[in-house]
Amino acid sequence: VPASQAQLPVYDAGVVQGATVTEMVRTFRLRPYRLAEHLERLFRSLRYTRLEIGLSSGQLEQIANDLIAHNGSLLDAGGDLGLNLFVTAGDAPLYQGMTGRRPRPEPTVCVHTFPLPFGLWARRMETGAHLITPSIRQLPAQCCDPQMKCRSRMHYYLADREAQQVEPEAFALLLDLNGNVTETSGANFLMVECGAILSPPMVDTLAGISRATVIDLAAKMGIPFRERTIGVLSAMNAEEAFLAGTPYCLMPVTRLNGVAIGGGRPGPIYRRLLETWSTEVELDIRQQILQGGRSG
Amino acid sequence: VPASQAQLPVYDAGVVQGATVTEMVRTFRLRPYRLAEHLERLFRSLRYTRLEIGLSSGQLEQIANDLIAHNGSLLDAGGDLGLNLFVTAGDAPLYQGMTGRRPRPEPTVCVHTFPLPFGLWARRMETGAHLITPSIRQLPAQCCDPQMKCRSRMHYYLADREAQQVEPEAFALLLDLNGNVTETSGANFLMVECGAILSPPMVDTLAGISRATVIDLAAKMGIPFRERTIGVLSAMNAEEAFLAGTPYCLMPVTRLNGVAIGGGRPGPIYRRLLETWSTEVELDIRQQILQGGRSG
Amino acid sequence: VPASQAQLPVYDAGVVQGATVTEMVRTFRLRPYRLAEHLERLFRSLRYTRLEIGLSSGQLEQIANDLIAHNGSLLDAGGDLGLNLFVTAGDAPLYQGMTGRRPRPEPTVCVHTFPLPFGLWARRMETGAHLITPSIRQLPAQCCDPQMKCRSRMHYYLADREAQQVEPEAFALLLDLNGNVTETSGANFLMVECGAILSPPMVDTLAGISRATVIDLAAKMGIPFRERTIGVLSAMNAEEAFLAGTPYCLMPVTRLNGVAIGGGRPGPIYRRLLETWSTEVELDIRQQILQGGRSG
Amino acid sequence: VPASQAQLPVYDAGVVQGATVTEMVRTFRLRPYRLAEHLERLFRSLRYTRLEIGLSSGQLEQIANDLIAHNGSLLDAGGDLGLNLFVTAGDAPLYQGMTGRRPRPEPTVCVHTFPLPFGLWARRMETGAHLITPSIRQLPAQCCDPQMKCRSRMHYYLADREAQQVEPEAFALLLDLNGNVTETSGANFLMVECGAILSPPMVDTLAGISRATVIDLAAKMGIPFRERTIGVLSAMNAEEAFLAGTPYCLMPVTRLNGVAIGGGRPGPIYRRLLETWSTEVELDIRQQILQGGRSG
Amino acid sequence: VPASQAQLPVYDAGVVQGATVTEMVRTFRLRPYRLAEHLERLFRSLRYTRLEIGLSSGQLEQIANDLIAHNGSLLDAGGDLGLNLFVTAGDAPLYQGMTGRRPRPEPTVCVHTFPLPFGLWARRMETGAHLITPSIRQLPAQCCDPQMKCRSRMHYYLADREAQQVEPEAFALLLDLNGNVTETSGANFLMVECGAILSPPMVDTLAGISRATVIDLAAKMGIPFRERTIGVLSAMNAEEAFLAGTPYCLMPVTRLNGVAIGGGRPGPIYRRLLETWSTEVELDIRQQILQGGRSG
Amino acid sequence: VPASQAQLPVYDAGVVQGATVTEMVRTFRLRPYRLAEHLERLFRSLRYTRLEIGLSSGQLEQIANDLIAHNGSLLDAGGDLGLNLFVTAGDAPLYQGMTGRRPRPEPTVCVHTFPLPFGLWARRMETGAHLITPSIRQLPAQCCDPQMKCRSRMHYYLADREAQQVEPEAFALLLDLNGNVTETSGANFLMVECGAILSPPMVDTLAGISRATVIDLAAKMGIPFRERTIGVLSAMNAEEAFLAGTPYCLMPVTRLNGVAIGGGRPGPIYRRLLETWSTEVELDIRQQILQGGRSG
Repeated sequence: VPASQAQLPVYDAGVVQGATVTEMVRTFRLRPYRLAEHLERLFRSLRYTRLEIGLSSGQLEQIANDLIAHNGSLLDAGGDLGLNLFVTAGDAPLYQGMTGRRPRPEPTVCVHTFPLPFGLWARRMETGAHLITPSIRQLPAQCCDPQMKCRSRMHYYLADREAQQVEPEAFALLLDLNGNVTETSGANFLMVECGAILSPPMVDTLAGISRATVIDLAAKMGIPFRERTIGVLSAMNAEEAFLAGTPYCLMPVTRLNGVAIGGGRPGPIYRRLLETWSTEVELDIRQQILQGGRSG
Repeated sequence: VPASQAQLPVYDAGVVQGATVTEMVRTFRLRPYRLAEHLERLFRSLRYTRLEIGLSSGQLEQIANDLIAHNGSLLDAGGDLGLNLFVTAGDAPLYQGMTGRRPRPEPTVCVHTFPLPFGLWARRMETGAHLITPSIRQLPAQCCDPQMKCRSRMHYYLADREAQQVEPEAFALLLDLNGNVTETSGANFLMVECGAILSPPMVDTLAGISRATVIDLAAKMGIPFRERTIGVLSAMNAEEAFLAGTPYCLMPVTRLNGVAIGGGRPGPIYRRLLETWSTEVELDIRQQILQGGRSG
Repeated sequence: VPASQAQLPVYDAGVVQGATVTEMVRTFRLRPYRLAEHLERLFRSLRYTRLEIGLSSGQLEQIANDLIAHNGSLLDAGGDLGLNLFVTAGDAPLYQGMTGRRPRPEPTVCVHTFPLPFGLWARRMETGAHLITPSIRQLPAQCCDPQMKCRSRMHYYLADREAQQVEPEAFALLLDLNGNVTETSGANFLMVECGAILSPPMVDTLAGISRATVIDLAAKMGIPFRERTIGVLSAMNAEEAFLAGTPYCLMPVTRLNGVAIGGGRPGPIYRRLLETWSTEVELDIRQQILQGGRSG
Repeated sequence: VPASQAQLPVYDAGVVQGATVTEMVRTFRLRPYRLAEHLERLFRSLRYTRLEIGLSSGQLEQIANDLIAHNGSLLDAGGDLGLNLFVTAGDAPLYQGMTGRRPRPEPTVCVHTFPLPFGLWARRMETGAHLITPSIRQLPAQCCDPQMKCRSRMHYYLADREAQQVEPEAFALLLDLNGNVTETSGANFLMVECGAILSPPMVDTLAGISRATVIDLAAKMGIPFRERTIGVLSAMNAEEAFLAGTPYCLMPVTRLNGVAIGGGRPGPIYRRLLETWSTEVELDIRQQILQGGRSG
Repeated sequence: VPASQAQLPVYDAGVVQGATVTEMVRTFRLRPYRLAEHLERLFRSLRYTRLEIGLSSGQLEQIANDLIAHNGSLLDAGGDLGLNLFVTAGDAPLYQGMTGRRPRPEPTVCVHTFPLPFGLWARRMETGAHLITPSIRQLPAQCCDPQMKCRSRMHYYLADREAQQVEPEAFALLLDLNGNVTETSGANFLMVECGAILSPPMVDTLAGISRATVIDLAAKMGIPFRERTIGVLSAMNAEEAFLAGTPYCLMPVTRLNGVAIGGGRPGPIYRRLLETWSTEVELDIRQQILQGGRSG
Repeated sequence: VPASQAQLPVYDAGVVQGATVTEMVRTFRLRPYRLAEHLERLFRSLRYTRLEIGLSSGQLEQIANDLIAHNGSLLDAGGDLGLNLFVTAGDAPLYQGMTGRRPRPEPTVCVHTFPLPFGLWARRMETGAHLITPSIRQLPAQCCDPQMKCRSRMHYYLADREAQQVEPEAFALLLDLNGNVTETSGANFLMVECGAILSPPMVDTLAGISRATVIDLAAKMGIPFRERTIGVLSAMNAEEAFLAGTPYCLMPVTRLNGVAIGGGRPGPIYRRLLETWSTEVELDIRQQILQGGRSG
């Protein structure tokens, strides 16, 4: 079906309970990036939820590639696709009367693409994102393991609304139950201290695949990468900070709780990482986003 | 649209983030029950999320009544309707390319009905539900205020899957972060001790409207009702226990963690409450469910 | 067997894991006091642990009464008995080779009496007990429900050792994980504020039967009794404080963390409670203890 | 005394409070294994509890060796011994009237052996153990330091009872207060991820000596060993998992929360570790257990 | 000395550690209000800190009255005084070399007055205060009992700075470690729900004396007053809310986290309470503040 | 002004709220030690509090050096100076009437020196400090980031008072909310295990500059240094332990909770570290303190 008509029945558990496991992949020059890693993580999430989809990783890869091939051909030049895979827990039994059939116990699997909306990020790629630590906290592992990428994310929505009280364009940087830094609603938070890249430990934070890319790039570039519990004071005193997320790869952070990070400008390690990444994928990632912002 | 075709676009924040506020109302003899209270709670949730729907409580009431009138007329005799109202945060900006238009900042409001599936509960109305305390815990208030009825409920799904390891028909009775009793995925937990009805305090539990009905009925019937932190030992030693939830009103609980509650049979206070409630709504609630089970 | 020879095999789960549920009853003038309540609590603990002893409450009562009758006759005049009932989880499977038989799955039930050692408490009945809040904390409900009287009490032992660093005769007043007052290793803590008796809530504290007696006595005497979270500052500023425990009934507390409580002397409400209790059981409780101290 | 007659008086603090510090050693071919390390850990626990036993490590070693020599000679061929050392806090003062003497302030020291009951583990050595994460949580360090091996373990008993609701032969894998993996009631949990052995950090888990043996063996075999906070999702997606405990050394884990680990079969790293260990002690550990199962 | 010259040496523990216990009293028509209650609370705090000041409550009362009499005579007509009593832990030993004498172990006691700065509050008395829940949390009881009024309040400062990110005039409404409402940096938070005044429980909140006045006034006026854990959703849906603090008595709250409370205007219960209070002290409290604002 | 006259007005936020950020530097032979690092940490704290002092690091360095030069010349031979820099949040608005002017929004900056009081530490340098773990806990990061050196330290005062109940000269070793070791009120805690120096992780503990010196010295001396969560049992079984704090550099710890550490005598690693440090600063640190004790 055309992407604009992709819909989920209101009686699906994905709508009713947010009982949805998901992955998002992006393409570079219309080739999917690290698709195998995304699929592996999807299957890890599925084992945790005990959802069985009856499709192998190879079959999903095939579907993804076919969809990208087809939808990529409809895209404007210079664009790239996001691809969403999600699996819901299927029919919610309570609503069985709506369909006139017994609720299907099988999960709903949905794969769709969308043009990456570069215009959303163009300005922040230049000026940097502004982050706020809200009072709403990251979900603890004993409610939902943070290594599962799922769609029960009301706390993200609430956290971002709080951040937007301060500044309409700000993102929330969620703290864990102990008050230490975790992640934003859409990305991993990384910072630079004494020339090394620091990440919060993966206890209450999803181990993102863009973050894994940063680890690989940093290793190649000789930049140390370390995990460490990060308090708010350390984050506010970072030499640099940036967000790692699938659709935009790396976005600079230039302000946290109203205080400028790294002089308020994207930092040199951020820039080098993004350049190296661009070289690897044979595409100027930053340029693509800025251009998308101008035309969008 | 016909209920079976009610759908949500995959780019809606309700699908993408579970950023959905909701209420469920049921009818007795096709008249909505405590609709005003449900709408008041919906507006309380909306204020918390800062979603503005541009509809007054009166307008929603009108829509609900119209829908019930229309859909009720299509229902089999003896049936009743559930009515779902939900509000999502509208278009998720990331997917704006799917629609070819700027993301609408307005919330999506959806109201639909469904025939109450009495067959789901018929057997448990006779034998009682079996509950298990899983390792997955209730969301703490600092992530999501429990007084908001929302649809980011993956932890409910996970908790029920754990309970079903023990017994395929069991429900999870979620504990809070301190290990005390809160609620099940669909209902408030109430128990009887020394002849009084006990409820966990409303700190980490949604104050349900069926529970409010129990409070009213108990007051009329002269049965004391108290809130108190309830440990697992107390719950396993309850004289009676039952669940209060909108679609089935009151369901007996006869087993907790493998131990029989109240001799393993629905208790006298449960039965008296349900009879009084039935009288109030001029409908034998238990009978309707049992009959639904036979025909369903 | 003679009490001095009552022993538990080293391969019993009571020795190996502290997997023991217990009750302690005392006699007044060789009649057991509130035995039915103790037995009821024992059965509540047993349901929580899912231990089935194959004995009814009536049978246990008979055994207890017989034992008291027999052993009471051997006691010095003016003495009274403590009676211990405990149930362990039976043979620990690991040690099955020690007995040359398959491990018995049945719980071990043991009932024994002991002369109440009044000499242990005599001095403190006059001068009052001194309490210290140690760094060791009360077990949280999610590890072990505090309403179960069990014998996995290493934390009590550690807490008392800490208190005895300050003063060799001091007892520990354990705080919960939030730093609020719970109980001592052998008794409930009660205090007087504005003329009312205050108790910590029964969330992280065993609801003792001597405490229940205080509630009954206070009701008869017109003294208000309230449960409330008690911080350390409030406790250190109590008008009076005392401990309620089965073997000595009520012991005054005259010092907490080095600060005198109630001018450092047993208070008037304490004295009135003890007198009323004495009247009820037709025995001067305080006198019996003081005399035991002199002769012991 | 004959092992079957080793008993503890019911007035001993080990029975009354579970105030017992312990170690368990096993023999290979009737020679004690890593006895010095066990004794060192025992003395560490004793310092923490401030129990002074008046025996040096050398004296305990002598006693252990003598006992093993004597009892080993009575054992069937092919068998091996477990040796238990435990120290209780001595007479509980409350029961002083039972003995007719003042309570002894000295700790009770007990050393005894038992034939290792290989039959208990034989089947699980082949099929692998099944683990369940129960709602009962591991004791936090502020109640009892997890590095002390003690016998106040009611929470283990409760946790295993919960696990056995699901499957009668399952063990509990306890989570800490944050919901992350710690240990089972009798062993350390270890898993394999990306070819490395992962262990939870030793914050809320006893650093077992069999686990220390695994560290040594892995170092020799060139297998990386790492400590990391382990969430439930990671554990459910382990390539392999196994338990390290003194009496059986290493037991494979093939199922966690109903999901197969490593294809449901003991994994290659597990097998290599056990073989290397067997070579070191000149005894086929697995074979001994399987044989014990057949004859037992 | 003249108030403007009241100073504390930089080596005083009050400066060095914030080890200061304090009370603030205000006058109505130059007579101190509830001075005895303030002094009683001061002595409660002193017992908790074990500071002994060598002055009785009567002596402090005399000093306070003398100071008010003297300084009141210098005040502009229509004004009133605040009176501050504070006690620090005396000389910090580290700095003994600054004074050339051994550090005095005695606490420093300081009493001073100040003209109440009505201009600070005038506008908010009309428009209402705006509150924000910051990410910084209230100190837990196990670090510092909240019933002690002390001056180690950096967390208040940080919380208010966070609130002022949103709106320069906003105050922080601090949440406890569980995410529930406690107090602002200078006042108790009270709200109206279903016509009753609700207060958070006094577990993590100072029991203010203005709040005690509200309890007394409400009792006289027949308005129910209840303590209950208050989540953020409930507070954002309050019918009215207000702050109770010594210097301004009662200040309306009209906005919380950007959402209007009670239609954004001071509510009727607030107004009635303030009028009754004004009658009691024979002074139009609101008028005095508004006038102070105009002239200030 | 002369140091003895350095004072802070009672209306300064440093006195009123403890809203003070601070650093302490010491001299060796009247040259400031690691001044740049202290200033860098001061500016990190200032960014966190958002206090802007209008002085650069270079300017503060100049002031510090001038003050040391001036005050050093007045000092007895063999002495050394402590230098205190602190920044308060300036005038507290509430007290504006005391000064007759509008409250200044600028922070108060104060720099002063004091002769190091070697006599305070002389005896403990020989016998070692005794530590006690009190029930009062370290502030959690979500109230106040522990990397900020601030002066809201009432909990330190309370903790030390508790420790002094046990022994008048003892210091408190504060535990975090999980019961693990953090720091004392004036120094970092370090211990030796298996020949390596262990430090608690810097999550709930200030990363001290003397501790940083130990890291540097240990690296030069080939002694391993590791961060690890440290439970009380581990600390009580340390081979050695010592405190690292600016004024005395390194003080041995010889007793924890009544148990001797390292045989009750300062250990060899401690002694070697102090000697190496002495060599680096061309001053026998231990000798200077002992001499100060004799003359002081």
